[in-house]
Amino acid sequence: MGEKKVDVGITASKKSDFSEWYIQVVQKAQLADYAPVKGLIVLRPDGYAIWESLQDTFNSRFAKVGVKNGFLPILIPESLLGREKEHFAGFTPEVFWVTHSGHSELGDRLALRPTSETIAYTMYAKWIRSWRDLPLKINFWNTALRSEIKATKPFLRTSEFLWQEGHTVHATSSEAERQVKIMLEIYRDVVEQELAIPVVSGKKSEREKFVGARYTTAIESIMPDGKALQMGTSHFLAQKFSKPFDVKFADRCNVEHFAWQTSWGVSWRLIGAMIMVHGDDKGLVLPPRVAPLQTVIVPIYRNDSQQNAVMDSARAVLDMLDAKNIRVRIDDREDVTPGFKFNDWEMKGVPIRIEIGPRDVASKSVVAVLRYSGKKQVVKTDDLTDAICKMLSEIQDAMLKKARQGAAELTFYASTYAEFKQMCSRGGFVRAVWCGGSECEQAIKDDTGAEIRVIPFEYDCDANESHAENGVEGKSNASLCNDDDAKCIKCQGQGLSIPLFARGY
Amino acid sequence: MGEKKVDVGITASKKSDFSEWYIQVVQKAQLADYAPVKGLIVLRPDGYAIWESLQDTFNSRFAKVGVKNGFLPILIPESLLGREKEHFAGFTPEVFWVTHSGHSELGDRLALRPTSETIAYTMYAKWIRSWRDLPLKINFWNTALRSEIKATKPFLRTSEFLWQEGHTVHATSSEAERQVKIMLEIYRDVVEQELAIPVVSGKKSEREKFVGARYTTAIESIMPDGKALQMGTSHFLAQKFSKPFDVKFADRCNVEHFAWQTSWGVSWRLIGAMIMVHGDDKGLVLPPRVAPLQTVIVPIYRNDSQQNAVMDSARAVLDMLDAKNIRVRIDDREDVTPGFKFNDWEMKGVPIRIEIGPRDVASKSVVAVLRYSGKKQVVKTDDLTDAICKMLSEIQDAMLKKARQGAAELTFYASTYAEFKQMCSRGGFVRAVWCGGSECEQAIKDDTGAEIRVIPFEYDCDANESHAENGVEGKSNASLCNDDDAKCIKCQGQGLSIPLFARGY
Repeated sequence: MGEKKVDVGITASKKSDFSEWYIQVVQKAQLADYAPVKGLIVLRPDGYAIWESLQDTFNSRFAKVGVKNGFLPILIPESLLGREKEHFAGFTPEVFWVTHSGHSELGDRLALRPTSETIAYTMYAKWIRSWRDLPLKINFWNTALRSEIKATKPFLRTSEFLWQEGHTVHATSSEAERQVKIMLEIYRDVVEQELAIPVVSGKKSEREKFVGARYTTAIESIMPDGKALQMGTSHFLAQKFSKPFDVKFADRCNVEHFAWQTSWGVSWRLIGAMIMVHGDDKGLVLPPRVAPLQTVIVPIYRNDSQQNAVMDSARAVLDMLDAKNIRVRIDDREDVTPGFKFNDWEMKGVPIRIEIGPRDVASKSVVAVLRYSGKKQVVKTDDLTDAICKMLSEIQDAMLKKARQGAAELTFYASTYAEFKQMCSRGGFVRAVWCGGSECEQAIKDDTGAEIRVIPFEYDCDANESHAENGVEGKSNASLCNDDDAKCIKCQGQGLSIPLFARGY
Repeated sequence: MGEKKVDVGITASKKSDFSEWYIQVVQKAQLADYAPVKGLIVLRPDGYAIWESLQDTFNSRFAKVGVKNGFLPILIPESLLGREKEHFAGFTPEVFWVTHSGHSELGDRLALRPTSETIAYTMYAKWIRSWRDLPLKINFWNTALRSEIKATKPFLRTSEFLWQEGHTVHATSSEAERQVKIMLEIYRDVVEQELAIPVVSGKKSEREKFVGARYTTAIESIMPDGKALQMGTSHFLAQKFSKPFDVKFADRCNVEHFAWQTSWGVSWRLIGAMIMVHGDDKGLVLPPRVAPLQTVIVPIYRNDSQQNAVMDSARAVLDMLDAKNIRVRIDDREDVTPGFKFNDWEMKGVPIRIEIGPRDVASKSVVAVLRYSGKKQVVKTDDLTDAICKMLSEIQDAMLKKARQGAAELTFYASTYAEFKQMCSRGGFVRAVWCGGSECEQAIKDDTGAEIRVIPFEYDCDANESHAENGVEGKSNASLCNDDDAKCIKCQGQGLSIPLFARGY
């Protein structure tokens, strides 16, 4: 009988026990919890609201480039999944199989979607007849299922994950390649602007690309524990699916061609990255743009007459901020102390706390405390809405700036292999010249555990041309491509690119 | 080689071949298509956009009554699903079972969620400790999977369907029962106001209720073919799940109690109902509030100089309407005739078509054609935005009024069993006095194929009291409950309610 007691605060240190700290923040800030099935998690409203905020932002960005949303079923027949062989081979070890419905065994096994290229393109082949139907650009918000054997990490390693997968079809190769870059650039911009996380854009190596793609581009970030996290991918599929799935169109002269395709996705990993990059020992720190609650008002009083005056003032402040579409609420719980509330909202990462006590009422001011920096400032009630709007915007910028600083401190350049190995063992992004050979890539992985996370466009001789042509921001590194002294960190052969190496999630 | 030819228009008549007509509208208006697995469908952007519009509306209604969104995984262990026996028995014949992941057989079989009570309440039991945590109200937008043996009907009968399922927990029975009614009333209002479909609110009979519920309330509509469609349900679960799932809370005196629960849902069936109720032999007719595109501008010209003037005018109209947030586009395709465009947009159900030709440019006017009524009117360009806003609102109201008229014409009152049987064979809602006995209910079903779709609150002696008490609109029918002459249509025993009987989807 009676109420169970729990440790409400975070008891692990981000610095000394990163993994335990992360799991405590996820659970105690009530973002997510473990489901009854191994490998699966549940999202609580405070966690899902962040995903909804990202969905809204992506939806408006997607709409601007002509992408609309659709729905695909979760069950894929085995025969269909296997039609593109390389693709299928990449997923078979982790596919969940449905074999029975009710009391009957199914004739064909059905896969739970690990990704939807095969089913989407089966439909696209029916829908596309001529050049008039192109480009076709549809995005799907759903979950993908890939059985995870290792220990679950909420948002980072789960057997079912929320994501979006976009699938486009084009008449020409160059238009499809342009789409690949446009989507990657949307990802980069949204992640940096909304989540305040800096990313590196570039290409994956042949070894690390999506198995069904001609090539894969990605945005990659470094986490505070020195491990890299893939934040989003955008694939150029060329005609690798259009041929087996018969995605053809008749051109204006009524001649049929196989179409050119792309696919691209981001998942709730982005939320995991946000927690890791910004959180601290008090808990979550939310960037204002994605915070479900941007400002919380905590009234402070000792007796009834104080309470009336303070609550009147709190409600007036609520109305002022609400009128400016600031997401705000009053914490009017009567059975906990103001101190408990401070800790609670700090754990939940609310960007600004407004404290209002009897003295503040008398002086027509409030105390605003920033979660991100801990800074307190007194603000006159008359100036409050402008001040809070400005603070929210400044916090957002400052969080990105701080995260950039953190990422810079975890990014190194190795000029010898000895240095390289030492840097890899310490963690972080290690930049080093590479010859482009997969033997060197494999040897490096064997020696250090580090893999090529991304080959930044600006440090890739192959990519420079198309990169510039497509107008995506980034400096060409002519010096590398023309520099005979740039030698592969491993084999000392001619350097062709400067990838970022790291161990990853 | 070359482009395939297809019949672009609807070739079946709604009146004479309702089922074929429906399927043609769904596919040719590009709302949905059949997936490669039997029983499953794909939603194309024009279909999914209607769902997104409903989601937006429901989300804002839910938020107003304190409901937030969350995420639950799709896999449920067999042991968990079976913990509430009656519930489990109801679903076993239609559950999809996952038995393998990759190349390994799973120890425990996993069910694809047929509904999420069991997994939600396992989590709720962890999260709820005291009265402070109540009420807990979370909604989940996802898909449910129930294997369908009969032929697939897009939106109406599919093995996977988009829906929302809300799950709330309360400290008292009366608060939970109030929640059941609040959610049902939101459903009624959204369906009538957004989809322009009239519904009847009431209770399900014991036989037709959700197996895990103490009782089920529902909104029900009659379709033009005379069959009834369940549009949404809201269940009072009482403590039927809180006991087996151990959903308990400590009250203010630190005494533990089992909680009281509700669950409620609507699915993409609502889109199916909208198609059936409003569509005609030209195709879809969309209510303006949910129409992805509300107005389409078709420019008409014969030569280049006409084209310039007409397109200038079309773009000016576009900008005017767009500035008022009317969802509008210009159909500027050059390879099809205006007549083709008229048919195309009529099939897709766009509420208003604006035609602009050289004469309209000269007279500073346009021709507006209403999809719903076919009426044409000339509107001066100066008055256009106000006129279009007014038309959209009038169309919405007129569509609901027309649908109410249609439903009234399909609703009958039977006073003898002979009359009752004849009415049931013709189709439609048949109102008749019922004693409340399940023997009569079964006998009626055996005789006529009709079942009790809903017992309207206002014609239910049992429900009147709690109905009035909860403040939901509806007249009490004291006359029935006090009328000794009200005899059961089947057994002539004392009548206790006047349900709506019908065959259903």
